[in-house]
Amino acid sequence: MAARFGMIGLGTMGRNLVLNVADHGFEVCGYDRDAKQRQIMEDAGKGKPVSTAASSAELIAKLQTPRIIMLLVPAGKIVDAVINELVPQLQKGDILIDGGNSHFIDTERRYLALQDSGIHFIGMGVSGGEDGARFGPSMMPGGNIESYNLVKDILEAIAAKAEGEPCVAYMGHSAAGHYVKMVHNGIEYAIMQLISEVYGLLKNEGVTNEQFVELFADWDKGPLQSFLIEITSVIFKKKDPETGNDLVDMILDKAEQLGTGLWTSQSALELNVPLSTIDVSVSMRYLSSLKEARVAYSKQYNHQNKKTGVAIEALKIACRDALVFAFMIAYGQGLELLKKASETYKYETDIKTVVKIWRGGCIIRSALLNDLFTAYEKRPDLSNIIGSPQFVEALKSKRSAVVQFLKTAMDAGMPAPAFASTLNYFDAYTLAQLPANLIQAQRDLFGAHTYHRIDKEGIFHTDWDYKPSDVE
Amino acid sequence: MAARFGMIGLGTMGRNLVLNVADHGFEVCGYDRDAKQRQIMEDAGKGKPVSTAASSAELIAKLQTPRIIMLLVPAGKIVDAVINELVPQLQKGDILIDGGNSHFIDTERRYLALQDSGIHFIGMGVSGGEDGARFGPSMMPGGNIESYNLVKDILEAIAAKAEGEPCVAYMGHSAAGHYVKMVHNGIEYAIMQLISEVYGLLKNEGVTNEQFVELFADWDKGPLQSFLIEITSVIFKKKDPETGNDLVDMILDKAEQLGTGLWTSQSALELNVPLSTIDVSVSMRYLSSLKEARVAYSKQYNHQNKKTGVAIEALKIACRDALVFAFMIAYGQGLELLKKASETYKYETDIKTVVKIWRGGCIIRSALLNDLFTAYEKRPDLSNIIGSPQFVEALKSKRSAVVQFLKTAMDAGMPAPAFASTLNYFDAYTLAQLPANLIQAQRDLFGAHTYHRIDKEGIFHTDWDYKPSDVE
Repeated sequence: MAARFGMIGLGTMGRNLVLNVADHGFEVCGYDRDAKQRQIMEDAGKGKPVSTAASSAELIAKLQTPRIIMLLVPAGKIVDAVINELVPQLQKGDILIDGGNSHFIDTERRYLALQDSGIHFIGMGVSGGEDGARFGPSMMPGGNIESYNLVKDILEAIAAKAEGEPCVAYMGHSAAGHYVKMVHNGIEYAIMQLISEVYGLLKNEGVTNEQFVELFADWDKGPLQSFLIEITSVIFKKKDPETGNDLVDMILDKAEQLGTGLWTSQSALELNVPLSTIDVSVSMRYLSSLKEARVAYSKQYNHQNKKTGVAIEALKIACRDALVFAFMIAYGQGLELLKKASETYKYETDIKTVVKIWRGGCIIRSALLNDLFTAYEKRPDLSNIIGSPQFVEALKSKRSAVVQFLKTAMDAGMPAPAFASTLNYFDAYTLAQLPANLIQAQRDLFGAHTYHRIDKEGIFHTDWDYKPSDVE
Repeated sequence: MAARFGMIGLGTMGRNLVLNVADHGFEVCGYDRDAKQRQIMEDAGKGKPVSTAASSAELIAKLQTPRIIMLLVPAGKIVDAVINELVPQLQKGDILIDGGNSHFIDTERRYLALQDSGIHFIGMGVSGGEDGARFGPSMMPGGNIESYNLVKDILEAIAAKAEGEPCVAYMGHSAAGHYVKMVHNGIEYAIMQLISEVYGLLKNEGVTNEQFVELFADWDKGPLQSFLIEITSVIFKKKDPETGNDLVDMILDKAEQLGTGLWTSQSALELNVPLSTIDVSVSMRYLSSLKEARVAYSKQYNHQNKKTGVAIEALKIACRDALVFAFMIAYGQGLELLKKASETYKYETDIKTVVKIWRGGCIIRSALLNDLFTAYEKRPDLSNIIGSPQFVEALKSKRSAVVQFLKTAMDAGMPAPAFASTLNYFDAYTLAQLPANLIQAQRDLFGAHTYHRIDKEGIFHTDWDYKPSDVE
């Protein structure tokens, strides 16, 4: 019997996805250049409808037509190499799915390059890590809707389920799938940075790892309920087998990254979308990696790690409410970027569908996504959740918790850049009159860059009567 | 007599530079496609050694060899078009200078493309606006040192002078000149945003435009002495002839931009340099432009414009000291980026020389640059001014002013994103132990991304005993 689904790249992610597909009754064939990986696949797939192929030709021969082939190979040149190897062997109507973390600009290029050949190309973001791949990821496919409909049954079968619905849906034209995944990761960076800032301040005030286990588990039962809060509780439980210490304390504080966060900030710059919470979360990863400089400077300044002695239970409540506030803003920033990208690149992405499939399987799954779904269901054109009636009361009532958190952090000398950016973004976005008129005046004075007026249309320039004092 | 210097593009900047060159005794010929611009040039150049040419061929015929031709045309495709028109008419040893705000990546491409031809290409940042061009700009030329030495006498003659020294020097190889100018503009964005935040908060507390005239003039006499502080005082004096109101109040609060700020943030993302004060200054320009949304949201929230009633004189002092602190950090971020770029792109840029030529003529000229010069003179390898003995005491003593400023801003509901980013950048950079170990733990748990340990070398991965709660 010919296989329904082909997979190229049998690393952990690819292998787990193959097993997931096979578990749902689809015949799968996997190919990897590395014979060892094929062997691991064979062993893991025993008793399931799984076979392997030793070459791309063999894989192609073993597949039903139209062929469905997913790539789970490292993003970048390898994706192009694999596509170039496959294309001459494929025929019109076959479907290639790139399931890696490809940059959306590469995906758009590949999508366009294949259009004339009649071979379909689906750029698909996959989130959920190894466990997700094995038991149900969240998947974000983009391309043309016809090709999506040809793979829909398989993807819906293997996807995570949230409230009974599969966490996969058509994200829009061209590179929409990888764009959505990129924004997902940008939001993920922000949420992780925010959690780390709460951890930093509370630790400074004397909260122990044991107490963090309980605190995060407790928070996971309320409005913060989410995968990242849940695993944070789990992390604090883990002992280091070598030293017997809590493992989290043995980990070096240099945060690494693979690039999707910085792509999100880059894209926001190009699309002129303010994204300051996500931006600073990316930039703090860079700063964290400058460990040697930080250690040296800390000795020169030594102004930190002062326990403020605030009432700890009240601070914990402020932390919780500040996190709720900041999570909302982080999603809001990401979704505003997505809306602008969809308009600019004509993806026709339906934001409420995006929010819906993020509710299960992916790293940023959270209870809050249900509220976001309601907000976008009621107002599909919503440009930022700050303007949604679903969020006004919550943001209003929780702003003071962010202020309290930030004041305590400043007193302690503990950094809270993501919370600070979040509050300032909110305060600026809800302010009718910003002091930016002064910036326009400065630009007009020194560069004749012109300005707009509040009382009439048009472009204006003024001679400001400035006499340079340091020019003879 | 053949002209020593050619100019293509006789807009305000080009024309003013021609007059500046001529005033220093060099024979100049200017060319512009537009006959009207040529006529304005002729009229303005009467009695000076200025001529015009009606074509690039005529310009080239009128120049001494090796020919020196500066382009002051809009950045982008026009620069390429002009270069393509010129090159077949030029010979080995001739020098092209692009004095526009070109992106450094374009400059690098053009520099490399011309290398085989033996035609020199100098990418040169020019700062100082129209007045600077006419009476003395700060100029940042990059390329090969031989070509710089051939134009040095002219550039030094026309440059602004600071403490008797010309504000022009060789910035390094390839695109170093435009890179330095880009960083200059990134710092400029930060300083302008910081000043606007002070203006916003003090205005909210009741400070009048008349008082701002005095306040900024007063600040311009102390450690904040700088072009941008000086012109801010001038701006508040200006009346709107139409309404009789202060003109600054008639200007719409949508801050515009031409792109160099966002390029700086993009480059920092690519080079993994934390640049959060500059980043947020770019992103706040985007936010300011969303005026309609801001007005709508302000009605939904209405939590701002609360006068806190703090003692105004004390707040003014805090503003001044907070500005001193934040200006230092803004320069520090920009110079750290420049250092990293110079290493990455092999510019061999000498930071102390950069700081030196910024002391006059350019938009970010300030008294502080003298201290920066001393800091880099003593330690040319300084990676960030936070680590410089020249700055430790000032930063230490002024941190509390930033905290005071931010607390008042939060109480008033007035945004202060650049100050907040500045403080948090500083607090994070001076903290030996960041909470980023938790981020590494999370990444390892959900994506097997591995981590480093504090007690030994190597790369580690742990099974964190996480059982997904929402996977059947």
